[in-house]
Amino acid sequence: MADTTKKTMIVFSGELDRVLAALVIANGAAAMGDEVTMFFTFWGLNALRQPKKQKTKGKTVLQQMFGHMMPRGPGRLTLSHMNFGGVGPQLMRQVMRQQNVSSIEELMATAQEQGVKMIACTMSMDVMGLKREELIDGLEFAGVATYLGAADDANVNLFI
Amino acid sequence: MADTTKKTMIVFSGELDRVLAALVIANGAAAMGDEVTMFFTFWGLNALRQPKKQKTKGKTVLQQMFGHMMPRGPGRLTLSHMNFGGVGPQLMRQVMRQQNVSSIEELMATAQEQGVKMIACTMSMDVMGLKREELIDGLEFAGVATYLGAADDANVNLFI
Amino acid sequence: MADTTKKTMIVFSGELDRVLAALVIANGAAAMGDEVTMFFTFWGLNALRQPKKQKTKGKTVLQQMFGHMMPRGPGRLTLSHMNFGGVGPQLMRQVMRQQNVSSIEELMATAQEQGVKMIACTMSMDVMGLKREELIDGLEFAGVATYLGAADDANVNLFI
Repeated sequence: MADTTKKTMIVFSGELDRVLAALVIANGAAAMGDEVTMFFTFWGLNALRQPKKQKTKGKTVLQQMFGHMMPRGPGRLTLSHMNFGGVGPQLMRQVMRQQNVSSIEELMATAQEQGVKMIACTMSMDVMGLKREELIDGLEFAGVATYLGAADDANVNLFI
Repeated sequence: MADTTKKTMIVFSGELDRVLAALVIANGAAAMGDEVTMFFTFWGLNALRQPKKQKTKGKTVLQQMFGHMMPRGPGRLTLSHMNFGGVGPQLMRQVMRQQNVSSIEELMATAQEQGVKMIACTMSMDVMGLKREELIDGLEFAGVATYLGAADDANVNLFI
Repeated sequence: MADTTKKTMIVFSGELDRVLAALVIANGAAAMGDEVTMFFTFWGLNALRQPKKQKTKGKTVLQQMFGHMMPRGPGRLTLSHMNFGGVGPQLMRQVMRQQNVSSIEELMATAQEQGVKMIACTMSMDVMGLKREELIDGLEFAGVATYLGAADDANVNLFI
Protein backbone atom coordinates (compact mmCIF):
# COMPACT_ATOMS: atom_id res chain seq x y z
CA MET A 1 0.00 0.00 0.00
CA ALA A 2 1.15 3.51 -0.73
CA ASP A 3 2.84 5.08 2.27
CA THR A 4 2.04 8.73 2.77
CA THR A 5 5.50 9.42 4.07
CA LYS A 6 7.45 8.85 0.86
CA LYS A 7 7.92 10.98 -2.22
CA THR A 8 10.07 10.57 -5.32
CA MET A 9 11.07 13.00 -8.03
CA ILE A 10 12.82 12.37 -11.29
CA VAL A 11 14.88 15.48 -11.98
CA PHE A 12 15.31 15.19 -15.73
CA SER A 13 15.58 18.87 -16.50
CA GLY A 14 18.72 20.84 -15.78
CA GLU A 15 17.12 24.24 -15.95
CA LEU A 16 17.58 26.46 -12.93
CA ASP A 17 13.88 27.14 -12.49
CA ARG A 18 12.85 23.48 -12.68
CA VAL A 19 15.62 22.33 -10.34
CA LEU A 20 14.57 25.08 -7.91
CA ALA A 21 10.98 23.83 -8.03
CA ALA A 22 12.15 20.27 -7.37
CA LEU A 23 14.25 21.33 -4.39
CA VAL A 24 11.49 23.45 -2.88
CA ILE A 25 9.10 20.49 -3.03
CA ALA A 26 11.76 18.10 -1.70
CA ASN A 27 12.61 20.36 1.23
CA GLY A 28 8.97 21.03 1.97
CA ALA A 29 8.19 17.32 2.08
CA ALA A 30 11.31 16.52 4.12
CA ALA A 31 10.40 19.26 6.61
CA MET A 32 7.02 17.54 7.04
CA GLY A 33 8.80 14.28 7.89
CA ASP A 34 8.59 12.61 4.49
CA GLU A 35 11.32 10.42 3.03
CA VAL A 36 12.24 12.00 -0.29
CA THR A 37 14.20 10.43 -3.13
CA MET A 38 15.44 12.62 -5.98
CA PHE A 39 16.57 10.67 -9.03
CA PHE A 40 18.73 12.91 -11.22
CA THR A 41 18.92 11.89 -14.84
CA PHE A 42 19.97 13.43 -18.18
CA TRP A 43 20.33 17.23 -17.88
CA GLY A 44 19.35 17.09 -14.24
CA LEU A 45 22.77 15.60 -13.53
CA ASN A 46 24.30 18.98 -14.33
CA ALA A 47 22.85 20.29 -11.06
CA LEU A 48 25.07 17.75 -9.27
CA ARG A 49 28.33 18.68 -10.98
CA GLN A 50 31.15 20.28 -9.08
CA PRO A 51 31.75 23.86 -10.19
CA LYS A 52 35.42 23.24 -10.95
CA LYS A 53 36.65 21.03 -13.77
CA GLN A 54 37.74 17.68 -12.32
CA LYS A 55 40.35 15.35 -13.73
CA THR A 56 38.71 12.31 -15.25
CA LYS A 57 39.87 9.21 -17.08
CA GLY A 58 38.41 7.10 -19.80
CA LYS A 59 36.15 9.62 -21.53
CA THR A 60 35.67 9.33 -25.27
CA VAL A 61 36.12 12.47 -27.36
CA LEU A 62 32.35 12.85 -27.61
CA GLN A 63 31.91 12.55 -23.85
CA GLN A 64 34.62 15.16 -23.32
CA MET A 65 32.75 17.47 -25.68
CA PHE A 66 29.43 16.93 -23.86
CA GLY A 67 31.17 17.47 -20.52
CA HIS A 68 32.68 20.67 -21.78
CA MET A 69 29.45 22.13 -23.09
CA MET A 70 27.12 21.22 -20.24
CA PRO A 71 26.87 23.53 -17.21
CA ARG A 72 28.99 22.68 -14.18
CA GLY A 73 26.80 22.80 -11.10
CA PRO A 74 23.88 24.90 -9.92
CA GLY A 75 25.71 28.18 -10.48
CA ARG A 76 25.78 27.68 -14.24
CA LEU A 77 22.27 26.43 -14.89
CA THR A 78 20.17 28.45 -17.30
CA LEU A 79 16.50 29.43 -17.15
CA SER A 80 13.92 27.71 -19.37
CA HIS A 81 12.54 31.16 -20.25
CA MET A 82 14.00 34.66 -20.22
CA ASN A 83 17.54 33.37 -19.93
CA PHE A 84 18.95 36.33 -21.89
CA GLY A 85 22.35 34.76 -22.35
CA GLY A 86 22.83 34.19 -18.64
CA VAL A 87 21.54 37.52 -17.34
CA GLY A 88 18.14 35.99 -16.50
CA PRO A 89 19.51 33.60 -13.85
CA GLN A 90 21.44 36.47 -12.23
CA LEU A 91 18.30 38.58 -12.09
CA MET A 92 16.30 35.70 -10.66
CA ARG A 93 18.94 35.14 -7.99
CA GLN A 94 18.81 38.83 -7.12
CA VAL A 95 15.02 38.83 -6.77
CA MET A 96 15.14 35.65 -4.71
CA ARG A 97 17.62 37.30 -2.36
CA GLN A 98 15.41 40.39 -2.08
CA GLN A 99 12.41 38.17 -1.27
CA ASN A 100 14.36 36.07 1.27
CA VAL A 101 13.98 32.91 -0.81
CA SER A 102 16.86 30.47 -0.37
CA SER A 103 19.32 30.22 -3.26
CA ILE A 104 19.70 26.98 -5.16
CA GLU A 105 22.96 26.26 -3.33
CA GLU A 106 21.24 26.73 0.04
CA LEU A 107 18.31 24.55 -1.04
CA MET A 108 20.72 21.79 -2.12
CA ALA A 109 22.55 21.97 1.21
CA THR A 110 19.28 21.93 3.17
CA ALA A 111 18.05 18.95 1.18
CA GLN A 112 21.20 17.00 1.98
CA GLU A 113 21.04 18.03 5.67
CA GLN A 114 17.40 16.93 5.84
CA GLY A 115 18.35 13.53 4.49
CA VAL A 116 16.82 13.84 1.04
CA LYS A 117 18.26 10.92 -0.88
CA MET A 118 19.91 12.06 -4.11
CA ILE A 119 20.56 9.39 -6.71
CA ALA A 120 22.55 9.98 -9.89
CA CYS A 121 21.30 7.84 -12.79
CA THR A 122 24.23 5.70 -13.88
CA MET A 123 22.92 5.09 -17.40
CA SER A 124 22.67 8.83 -18.03
CA MET A 125 26.13 9.33 -16.54
CA ASP A 126 27.46 6.84 -19.08
CA VAL A 127 25.71 8.54 -21.97
CA MET A 128 26.80 12.01 -20.94
CA GLY A 129 30.21 10.85 -19.89
CA LEU A 130 29.93 12.16 -16.35
CA LYS A 131 32.22 10.46 -13.83
CA ARG A 132 31.55 10.10 -10.10
CA GLU A 133 34.52 12.31 -9.27
CA GLU A 134 32.88 15.19 -11.17
CA LEU A 135 29.76 15.13 -9.02
CA ILE A 136 29.20 16.46 -5.51
CA ASP A 137 29.56 14.31 -2.42
CA GLY A 138 26.76 12.45 -0.68
CA LEU A 139 25.15 10.92 -3.76
CA GLU A 140 24.05 7.39 -4.46
CA PHE A 141 24.51 5.83 -7.88
CA ALA A 142 21.84 3.61 -9.35
CA GLY A 143 19.59 2.90 -12.31
CA VAL A 144 15.94 2.85 -13.22
CA ALA A 145 15.15 -0.29 -11.19
CA THR A 146 16.15 1.51 -8.01
CA TYR A 147 13.98 4.46 -8.97
CA LEU A 148 11.02 2.18 -9.64
CA GLY A 149 11.47 0.46 -6.30
CA ALA A 150 11.37 3.82 -4.52
CA ALA A 151 8.39 4.98 -6.57
CA ASP A 152 6.43 1.84 -5.68
CA ASP A 153 6.82 2.72 -1.99
CA ALA A 154 5.87 6.37 -2.44
CA ASN A 155 2.53 8.12 -2.76
CA VAL A 156 3.71 11.12 -4.78
CA ASN A 157 5.97 10.61 -7.80
CA LEU A 158 6.83 13.55 -10.03
CA PHE A 159 8.78 13.89 -13.27
CA ILE A 160 10.35 17.33 -13.42
CA MET B 1 -4.89 5.55 1.90
CA ALA B 2 -4.98 7.13 -1.49
CA ASP B 3 -8.46 8.28 -2.45
CA THR B 4 -9.35 7.65 -6.08
CA THR B 5 -11.41 10.77 -6.23
CA LYS B 6 -8.61 13.33 -5.91
CA LYS B 7 -6.04 14.60 -8.39
CA THR B 8 -3.40 17.31 -8.20
CA MET B 9 -1.34 19.02 -10.85
CA ILE B 10 1.55 21.40 -10.49
CA VAL B 11 1.34 23.75 -13.46
CA PHE B 12 4.92 24.96 -13.63
CA SER B 13 5.05 25.61 -17.34
CA GLY B 14 3.43 28.66 -18.87
CA GLU B 15 3.41 27.37 -22.42
CA LEU B 16 0.04 27.33 -24.14
CA ASP B 17 0.28 23.66 -25.11
CA ARG B 18 1.20 22.45 -21.63
CA VAL B 19 -1.44 24.58 -19.92
CA LEU B 20 -3.99 23.22 -22.41
CA ALA B 21 -2.98 19.67 -21.53
CA ALA B 22 -3.31 20.43 -17.82
CA LEU B 23 -6.77 21.92 -18.26
CA VAL B 24 -7.99 19.04 -20.43
CA ILE B 25 -6.92 16.55 -17.75
CA ALA B 26 -8.39 18.70 -14.96
CA ASN B 27 -11.72 19.08 -16.72
CA GLY B 28 -11.82 15.40 -17.63
CA ALA B 29 -11.22 14.37 -14.03
CA ALA B 30 -13.69 16.92 -12.67
CA ALA B 31 -16.33 15.68 -15.12
CA MET B 32 -15.82 12.19 -13.69
CA GLY B 33 -16.48 13.52 -10.20
CA ASP B 34 -12.91 13.93 -9.03
CA GLU B 35 -11.71 16.75 -6.80
CA VAL B 36 -8.94 18.46 -8.71
CA THR B 37 -6.33 20.86 -7.37
CA MET B 38 -4.16 22.83 -9.78
CA PHE B 39 -1.14 24.45 -8.16
CA PHE B 40 0.21 27.17 -10.44
CA THR B 41 3.83 28.06 -9.91
CA PHE B 42 6.62 29.89 -11.77
CA TRP B 43 5.70 30.44 -15.44
CA GLY B 44 2.38 28.69 -14.91
CA LEU B 45 1.23 31.79 -13.02
CA ASN B 46 1.18 33.66 -16.31
CA ALA B 47 -1.88 31.64 -17.30
CA LEU B 48 -3.66 33.25 -14.35
CA ARG B 49 -2.80 36.86 -15.17
CA GLN B 50 -5.46 39.31 -16.22
CA PRO B 51 -5.05 40.38 -19.84
CA LYS B 52 -4.96 44.09 -18.95
CA LYS B 53 -2.14 45.73 -17.04
CA GLN B 54 -3.25 46.26 -13.45
CA LYS B 55 -2.07 48.95 -11.07
CA THR B 56 0.20 47.45 -8.45
CA LYS B 57 2.19 48.77 -5.52
CA GLY B 58 5.46 47.80 -3.95
CA LYS B 59 7.20 46.13 -6.87
CA THR B 60 10.95 46.44 -7.16
CA VAL B 61 12.41 47.54 -10.48
CA LEU B 62 13.35 43.95 -11.26
CA GLN B 63 9.85 42.70 -10.50
CA GLN B 64 8.40 45.39 -12.73
CA MET B 65 10.72 44.22 -15.53
CA PHE B 66 9.69 40.57 -15.06
CA GLY B 67 6.04 41.57 -14.97
CA HIS B 68 6.47 43.55 -18.16
CA MET B 69 8.16 40.75 -20.09
CA MET B 70 6.01 37.82 -19.04
CA PRO B 71 2.77 37.08 -20.93
CA ARG B 72 -0.45 38.45 -19.48
CA GLY B 73 -3.02 35.68 -19.40
CA PRO B 74 -3.90 32.70 -21.61
CA GLY B 75 -4.21 34.84 -24.73
CA ARG B 76 -0.52 35.67 -24.72
CA LEU B 77 1.02 32.31 -23.92
CA THR B 78 3.47 30.91 -26.45
CA LEU B 79 3.91 27.36 -27.73
CA SER B 80 6.84 25.21 -26.59
CA HIS B 81 7.45 24.28 -30.26
CA MET B 82 6.60 25.94 -33.56
CA ASN B 83 5.80 29.25 -31.91
CA PHE B 84 6.95 31.23 -34.96
CA GLY B 85 6.95 34.54 -33.15
CA GLY B 86 3.36 34.18 -32.02
CA VAL B 87 1.85 32.86 -35.26
CA GLY B 88 1.95 29.27 -33.96
CA PRO B 89 -0.52 29.88 -31.11
CA GLN B 90 -2.91 31.60 -33.55
CA LEU B 91 -2.72 28.65 -35.92
CA MET B 92 -3.29 26.21 -33.07
CA ARG B 93 -6.32 28.17 -31.91
CA GLN B 94 -7.67 28.11 -35.45
CA VAL B 95 -7.25 24.34 -35.76
CA MET B 96 -8.79 23.81 -32.34
CA ARG B 97 -11.81 25.83 -33.40
CA GLN B 98 -12.11 23.84 -36.64
CA GLN B 99 -11.95 20.60 -34.63
CA ASN B 100 -14.47 21.79 -32.05
CA VAL B 101 -11.92 21.65 -29.25
CA SER B 102 -12.56 24.22 -26.50
CA SER B 103 -10.23 27.21 -26.39
CA ILE B 104 -7.97 27.77 -23.40
CA GLU B 105 -10.29 30.52 -22.14
CA GLU B 106 -13.28 28.16 -22.32
CA LEU B 107 -11.32 25.39 -20.59
CA MET B 108 -10.34 27.78 -17.78
CA ALA B 109 -13.96 28.87 -17.35
CA THR B 110 -15.19 25.26 -17.36
CA ALA B 111 -12.57 24.28 -14.80
CA GLN B 112 -13.68 27.05 -12.47
CA GLU B 113 -17.37 26.18 -13.01
CA GLN B 114 -16.66 22.53 -12.24
CA GLY B 115 -15.00 23.51 -8.98
CA VAL B 116 -11.40 22.77 -9.90
CA LYS B 117 -9.40 24.39 -7.14
CA MET B 118 -6.78 26.76 -8.53
CA ILE B 119 -3.98 27.76 -6.18
CA ALA B 120 -1.40 30.41 -7.01
CA CYS B 121 1.98 29.66 -5.42
CA THR B 122 2.77 32.61 -3.16
CA MET B 123 6.54 32.04 -3.16
CA SER B 124 6.63 32.19 -6.95
CA MET B 125 4.42 35.27 -6.89
CA ASP B 126 6.98 36.95 -4.66
CA VAL B 127 9.88 35.97 -6.89
CA MET B 128 8.13 37.05 -10.07
CA GLY B 129 6.62 40.09 -8.48
CA LEU B 130 3.04 39.14 -9.30
CA LYS B 131 0.41 40.70 -7.07
CA ARG B 132 -3.01 39.24 -6.26
CA GLU B 133 -4.74 42.12 -8.06
CA GLU B 134 -3.01 41.11 -11.31
CA LEU B 135 -4.47 37.61 -11.26
CA ILE B 136 -7.94 36.41 -12.16
CA ASP B 137 -10.69 35.96 -9.57
CA GLY B 138 -11.52 32.73 -7.79
CA LEU B 139 -7.99 31.70 -6.86
CA GLU B 140 -6.56 30.53 -3.58
CA PHE B 141 -3.12 31.61 -2.46
CA ALA B 142 -0.81 29.17 -0.73
CA GLY B 143 2.61 27.57 -0.64
CA VAL B 144 4.24 24.20 -1.07
CA ALA B 145 2.91 22.78 2.22
CA THR B 146 -0.66 23.20 0.97
CA TYR B 147 0.26 21.49 -2.28
CA LEU B 148 1.86 18.59 -0.42
CA GLY B 149 -1.20 18.20 1.78
CA ALA B 150 -3.42 17.95 -1.30
CA ALA B 151 -1.00 15.56 -3.03
CA ASP B 152 -1.00 13.26 0.02
CA ASP B 153 -4.78 12.91 -0.32
CA ALA B 154 -4.70 12.33 -4.07
CA ASN B 155 -4.00 9.26 -6.17
CA VAL B 156 -2.73 11.03 -9.28
CA ASN B 157 -0.19 13.84 -8.96
CA LEU B 158 1.35 15.35 -12.07
CA PHE B 159 4.05 17.96 -12.65
CA ILE B 160 3.37 19.76 -15.90
CA MET C 1 -6.63 0.82 -3.77
CA ALA C 2 -3.56 1.59 -5.78
CA ASP C 3 -2.07 -1.52 -7.36
CA THR C 4 1.70 -1.65 -7.27
CA THR C 5 1.80 -3.40 -10.60
CA LYS C 6 0.52 -0.57 -12.80
CA LYS C 7 2.19 2.54 -14.13
CA THR C 8 1.07 5.26 -16.53
CA MET C 9 2.97 7.93 -18.37
CA ILE C 10 1.68 10.84 -20.38
CA VAL C 11 4.24 11.42 -23.11
CA PHE C 12 3.50 15.04 -23.98
CA SER C 13 6.97 15.99 -25.12
CA GLY C 14 8.33 14.93 -28.48
CA GLU C 15 11.95 15.58 -27.69
CA LEU C 16 14.30 12.67 -28.19
CA ASP C 17 15.76 12.85 -24.69
CA ARG C 18 12.38 12.94 -22.96
CA VAL C 19 10.93 10.14 -25.08
CA LEU C 20 14.06 8.09 -24.31
CA ALA C 21 13.55 8.66 -20.60
CA ALA C 22 9.90 7.60 -20.88
CA LEU C 23 10.81 4.41 -22.74
CA VAL C 24 13.58 3.48 -20.31
CA ILE C 25 11.16 3.80 -17.39
CA ALA C 26 8.42 1.92 -19.27
CA ASN C 27 10.74 -0.93 -20.20
CA GLY C 28 12.20 -1.09 -16.71
CA ALA C 29 8.75 -1.32 -15.16
CA ALA C 30 7.54 -3.87 -17.73
CA ALA C 31 10.63 -6.00 -17.09
CA MET C 32 9.67 -6.02 -13.40
CA GLY C 33 6.23 -7.33 -14.32
CA ASP C 34 4.31 -4.07 -14.22
CA GLU C 35 1.48 -3.19 -16.58
CA VAL C 36 2.51 0.04 -18.25
CA THR C 37 0.32 2.46 -20.20
CA MET C 38 1.93 5.21 -22.24
CA PHE C 39 -0.49 7.93 -23.34
CA PHE C 40 1.04 9.90 -26.21
CA THR C 41 -0.34 13.39 -26.65
CA PHE C 42 0.62 16.62 -28.45
CA TRP C 43 4.28 16.54 -29.56
CA GLY C 44 4.70 13.07 -28.09
CA LEU C 45 2.63 11.76 -31.00
CA ASN C 46 5.54 12.53 -33.30
CA ALA C 47 7.43 9.62 -31.73
CA LEU C 48 4.68 7.36 -33.10
CA ARG C 49 4.75 8.61 -36.69
CA GLN C 50 5.94 6.42 -39.49
CA PRO C 51 9.18 7.65 -41.01
CA LYS C 52 7.76 7.81 -44.52
CA LYS C 53 5.10 10.25 -45.61
CA GLN C 54 1.77 8.44 -45.76
CA LYS C 55 -1.17 9.28 -47.96
CA THR C 56 -3.95 10.83 -45.93
CA LYS C 57 -7.38 12.24 -46.64
CA GLY C 58 -9.40 15.02 -45.16
CA LYS C 59 -6.67 17.23 -43.73
CA THR C 60 -7.20 20.97 -43.71
CA VAL C 61 -4.44 23.17 -45.09
CA LEU C 62 -3.33 24.01 -41.56
CA GLN C 63 -3.17 20.35 -40.56
CA GLN C 64 -1.14 19.59 -43.67
CA MET C 65 1.27 22.36 -42.67
CA PHE C 66 1.58 21.03 -39.11
CA GLY C 67 2.09 17.52 -40.45
CA HIS C 68 4.78 18.74 -42.78
CA MET C 69 6.73 20.61 -40.11
CA MET C 70 6.59 18.09 -37.30
CA PRO C 71 9.18 15.29 -37.13
CA ARG C 72 8.21 11.93 -38.61
CA GLY C 73 9.08 9.24 -36.10
CA PRO C 74 11.82 8.66 -33.56
CA GLY C 75 14.60 9.14 -36.09
CA ARG C 76 13.72 12.80 -36.57
CA LEU C 77 13.15 13.89 -32.99
CA THR C 78 15.31 16.73 -31.71
CA LEU C 79 17.01 17.19 -28.35
CA SER C 80 15.65 19.67 -25.79
CA HIS C 81 19.20 20.98 -25.31
CA MET C 82 22.31 20.95 -27.45
CA ASN C 83 20.38 20.05 -30.57
CA PHE C 84 22.80 21.97 -32.82
CA GLY C 85 20.56 21.79 -35.85
CA GLY C 86 20.25 18.02 -35.68
CA VAL C 87 23.88 17.15 -34.97
CA GLY C 88 23.15 16.74 -31.25
CA PRO C 89 20.79 13.77 -31.71
CA GLN C 90 23.36 12.06 -33.97
CA LEU C 91 26.08 12.54 -31.36
CA MET C 92 23.81 11.24 -28.63
CA ARG C 93 22.99 8.17 -30.70
CA GLN C 94 26.69 7.59 -31.24
CA VAL C 95 27.49 7.83 -27.52
CA MET C 96 24.56 5.56 -26.68
CA ARG C 97 25.90 2.95 -29.11
CA GLN C 98 29.37 3.24 -27.60
CA GLN C 99 27.89 2.75 -24.13
CA ASN C 100 25.72 -0.18 -25.21
CA VAL C 101 22.52 1.69 -24.45
CA SER C 102 19.60 0.67 -26.67
CA SER C 103 18.57 3.12 -29.38
CA ILE C 104 15.13 4.73 -29.31
CA GLU C 105 13.96 2.38 -32.08
CA GLU C 106 15.09 -0.65 -30.05
CA LEU C 107 13.45 0.71 -26.91
CA MET C 108 10.18 1.21 -28.80
CA ALA C 109 10.30 -2.33 -30.15
CA THR C 110 11.12 -3.77 -26.72
CA ALA C 111 8.27 -1.83 -25.15
CA GLN C 112 5.82 -3.22 -27.68
CA GLU C 113 7.20 -6.76 -27.24
CA GLN C 114 6.86 -6.45 -23.48
CA GLY C 115 3.23 -5.48 -23.85
CA VAL C 116 3.52 -1.83 -22.90
CA LYS C 117 0.19 -0.35 -23.93
CA MET C 118 0.65 2.67 -26.20
CA ILE C 119 -2.33 4.95 -26.61
CA ALA C 120 -2.46 7.82 -29.08
CA CYS C 121 -4.57 10.72 -27.82
CA THR C 122 -7.35 11.22 -30.34
CA MET C 123 -8.02 14.85 -29.42
CA SER C 124 -4.39 15.77 -30.05
CA MET C 125 -4.47 13.81 -33.30
CA ASP C 126 -7.40 15.94 -34.41
CA VAL C 127 -5.68 19.18 -33.47
CA MET C 128 -2.41 18.23 -35.12
CA GLY C 129 -4.11 16.60 -38.04
CA LEU C 130 -2.44 13.23 -37.56
CA LYS C 131 -4.32 10.29 -39.07
CA ARG C 132 -4.19 6.68 -37.85
CA GLU C 133 -2.54 5.57 -41.09
CA GLU C 134 0.41 7.88 -40.37
CA LEU C 135 1.19 6.22 -37.05
CA ILE C 136 2.94 2.93 -36.31
CA ASP C 137 1.06 -0.33 -35.80
CA GLY C 138 0.00 -1.73 -32.46
CA LEU C 139 -1.47 1.45 -30.97
CA GLU C 140 -4.76 2.06 -29.25
CA PHE C 141 -6.70 5.26 -29.83
CA ALA C 142 -8.46 6.97 -26.98
CA GLY C 143 -9.00 10.18 -25.06
CA VAL C 144 -8.41 11.65 -21.63
CA ALA C 145 -11.11 9.55 -19.92
CA THR C 146 -9.25 6.37 -20.84
CA TYR C 147 -6.03 7.84 -19.50
CA LEU C 148 -7.72 8.81 -16.24
CA GLY C 149 -9.16 5.33 -15.84
CA ALA C 150 -5.71 3.81 -16.23
CA ALA C 151 -4.16 6.37 -13.87
CA ASP C 152 -6.75 5.57 -11.20
CA ASP C 153 -5.61 1.95 -11.27
CA ALA C 154 -1.89 2.76 -11.20
CA ASN C 155 0.44 3.70 -8.38
CA VAL C 156 2.94 5.70 -10.42
CA ASN C 157 1.69 8.32 -12.90
CA LEU C 158 4.17 10.58 -14.66
CA PHE C 159 3.80 13.51 -17.05
CA ILE C 160 6.81 13.65 -19.32
